[in-house]
Amino acid sequence: MAESSFAVGISKISDGLQQAQADRVAVEEPLEVRLGYSTPDGRAARSVSITMRTPGDDEALAAGFLFTESIVNSAADITAIEPCAENVIRVELGRDVAVNLGRLQRHFYTTSSCGVCGKASLDALHAIGIGPPDSSLTVRTDILTSIPGKLRARQDTFEQTGGLHAAAAFDASGELLVTREDVGRHNAVDKVIGALLRDGRLPASELGLMVSGRASFELMQKTLVAGMPLLAAVSAPSSLAVSLAQEFNMTLVGFLRGETFNIYAGEQRIVT
Amino acid sequence: MAESSFAVGISKISDGLQQAQADRVAVEEPLEVRLGYSTPDGRAARSVSITMRTPGDDEALAAGFLFTESIVNSAADITAIEPCAENVIRVELGRDVAVNLGRLQRHFYTTSSCGVCGKASLDALHAIGIGPPDSSLTVRTDILTSIPGKLRARQDTFEQTGGLHAAAAFDASGELLVTREDVGRHNAVDKVIGALLRDGRLPASELGLMVSGRASFELMQKTLVAGMPLLAAVSAPSSLAVSLAQEFNMTLVGFLRGETFNIYAGEQRIVT
Repeated sequence: MAESSFAVGISKISDGLQQAQADRVAVEEPLEVRLGYSTPDGRAARSVSITMRTPGDDEALAAGFLFTESIVNSAADITAIEPCAENVIRVELGRDVAVNLGRLQRHFYTTSSCGVCGKASLDALHAIGIGPPDSSLTVRTDILTSIPGKLRARQDTFEQTGGLHAAAAFDASGELLVTREDVGRHNAVDKVIGALLRDGRLPASELGLMVSGRASFELMQKTLVAGMPLLAAVSAPSSLAVSLAQEFNMTLVGFLRGETFNIYAGEQRIVT
Repeated sequence: MAESSFAVGISKISDGLQQAQADRVAVEEPLEVRLGYSTPDGRAARSVSITMRTPGDDEALAAGFLFTESIVNSAADITAIEPCAENVIRVELGRDVAVNLGRLQRHFYTTSSCGVCGKASLDALHAIGIGPPDSSLTVRTDILTSIPGKLRARQDTFEQTGGLHAAAAFDASGELLVTREDVGRHNAVDKVIGALLRDGRLPASELGLMVSGRASFELMQKTLVAGMPLLAAVSAPSSLAVSLAQEFNMTLVGFLRGETFNIYAGEQRIVT
């Protein structure tokens, strides 16, 4: 198991006094994802992503990334997934899986009708066949406010380093089913969704997703693609995260701290 | 001037009570950067980046991105930079500027000698000719601890939304020369460095960079490419940010809050 934190010597300055101390920082290393797939001429392989991540759960990270970016549509598309060198993971797709690598170019955000804009980013999701989550999930207010404390209690590396983002999938009873940490916010989410995918639990229409930081368009998109109807964040959402939640009938909660939170969309799923 | 925040209606839940309120969120919209450049066959143009950003200062963002990713090496490489459609900005390079678009593939993190690893990421910076900042900057402890408050005071949109990252270039006297906000941490940094580039102030060897969040490899790399010897962050650094600072004789400060901070590398520039 790769180490997720690393010992360093620091100078701590406090009220003008300087002191040498031992400290730990979160490990950040590149991970390359290589995809093996079929073409009319036989098998091909190429590098599809290099991301800076905290080592550990690389299989889930790779699977979650490919799924939430809509390169693969189910766990069955993936026939093998294993490390092939240090910081390189190889994902083999089934013989009959059609691959649209153009989606990796992020032209996702562009449509011919209105060019590059937030609306086009939402339209592009519709265009690849993604619809609102089919869910009956509701969450009680007191359950929701209990989630950040539970997540924090499971953040082993954060406690050591103060330097990691965390994400968790939780159910209506407030149980955390999967929790993951990473230096990259999107990586922590990909690891959670990749773990659910590999366990055959997607679409996770009766689960919510909690993240330690802000709620961006990218995180809202990943939540939607996983079929999850609710994203809750410790910090603020962006305008486009709010628009996506409204457009796809999702619930977006921000500033979830102590006994207080804001509902930006989909308040019918929150029971006070 | 594009709006950087957006009005939304929310439900605020506090101690079990629900109340409708007006709120503002940070605007997030895609920006496409198109590059015009010369080839042996004449002029060519292609899309080199789509990033989710907060509108405003798009010219500085595009210039800073191209510079910190080492696609251009000086302000003189750029002959024009202007919006060509909504959320699209066009950057024209001079006739004799050689473009290495391979650098955009992020193979940056790979070398033939050791494959994909943190060390390769550092070696790749050496390989493109980037060395330690040539700087005589030193900063007094009391000056450094004054920076976060000054930055916060200038964060107009953060005050409204709580949802934006900020970055600032400051000098040894504690003056903030350039401050920028964005939903993306790397975008805020690119906007600051792009503004310095366009003003003819790079390498900024006598300035430090302050960021509102964590210090990752990517932010440390951008600081280095701008010739700045010091990065100070409100939150934690990653392992690879510490390694980069050590390797390139830079100063890395983390957890800069109140009268307290940690020095992870280059303490000779901090005067207590």
